[in-house]
Amino acid sequence: MKLSSKISNATELFTKLQGVGERSALRHVLSLTKWSREDLEEFGMAIQALSELEHCIECGIFSEQKKCHICLSQQRVEKKEICVVEEISDCLAIENSGRFSGVYFILGGVLNPLAGIGPSELKIEKLIQRISQEEMKNVILALNPSVEGDATASYIKEELPKETFVERIGFGIPMGGSLEYLDAMTITKALENKREM
Amino acid sequence: MKLSSKISNATELFTKLQGVGERSALRHVLSLTKWSREDLEEFGMAIQALSELEHCIECGIFSEQKKCHICLSQQRVEKKEICVVEEISDCLAIENSGRFSGVYFILGGVLNPLAGIGPSELKIEKLIQRISQEEMKNVILALNPSVEGDATASYIKEELPKETFVERIGFGIPMGGSLEYLDAMTITKALENKREM
Repeated sequence: MKLSSKISNATELFTKLQGVGERSALRHVLSLTKWSREDLEEFGMAIQALSELEHCIECGIFSEQKKCHICLSQQRVEKKEICVVEEISDCLAIENSGRFSGVYFILGGVLNPLAGIGPSELKIEKLIQRISQEEMKNVILALNPSVEGDATASYIKEELPKETFVERIGFGIPMGGSLEYLDAMTITKALENKREM
Repeated sequence: MKLSSKISNATELFTKLQGVGERSALRHVLSLTKWSREDLEEFGMAIQALSELEHCIECGIFSEQKKCHICLSQQRVEKKEICVVEEISDCLAIENSGRFSGVYFILGGVLNPLAGIGPSELKIEKLIQRISQEEMKNVILALNPSVEGDATASYIKEELPKETFVERIGFGIPMGGSLEYLDAMTITKALENKREM
């Protein structure tokens, strides 16, 4: 069925969002067609406003000021702990757990030679600089468990002075997970990471 | 974690879309933050343009002209068959099956007294008018199987002249469905709709 170009245009743009297929994109657009003109205006402007987002010059988190509220917090900076993550969303997930009280550093991805992402494409140099300048006592690499994540973690560890205390977040069975349904790799990691109780 | 108001604003608007919860809304917004300024501009404008969509004066489908290409097709109009659906998305689903060659009519919903939707809130009067004016030979009520859909179908049947041939789409086991997993109501309907083979 030939749909209006306005529909197909908006649908195509929706499919560019992560995890949105053609069917759900169309469903979103059809549901938008029931919105009022004012609501559509507001939604469109909210999306356009995302291009004006500023990032903290220290860690890369969104921030309306030069430095984000985490990097501005004396208490958090004084912990001398830095948690390195791939993306802002990872940092949100950790912050939601409420169990980390140092500062963050958004790497912007992981090393991936096949995709042409080398050390210079990521903010590794800036990270090393910050760690030495602020005399961080503890570096936590919260990179995802993937071949690229592993390689990136090893690379960063190598680049840091030998005396820096570098840790990587623990891998194993997730809470509420069931051994029966977990993949062999996770179980292998969980066995490697066993602890005396 | 306190996020930029631009993020929370856009996230809140995304949650207004059907089937988008807070987590996936935030995921969408975070993925949008990686888009270029131009792409965000384009997406915002595509959404705003949806407020300018025009509808076919005959059936209610989106159309850039006064009448949609289906209502303009002599071949389809001459079939004298009309398929009544709740929403435009239902009509798209039927059109995709390629098995209906008459015209459509978008009712705009179903009767729902509790939500204050009576016959005057839907386009039932216009439907009756069109059926008699165009001397439709066959009316197919493709309303969803729900209490409200059933009531609406019965109401339309009552309002039409006795001699109109009114049918409702078949209910039963969906293709690829498995009896084991289907609800009792679907199985009841499937048994009611059994056919000699």
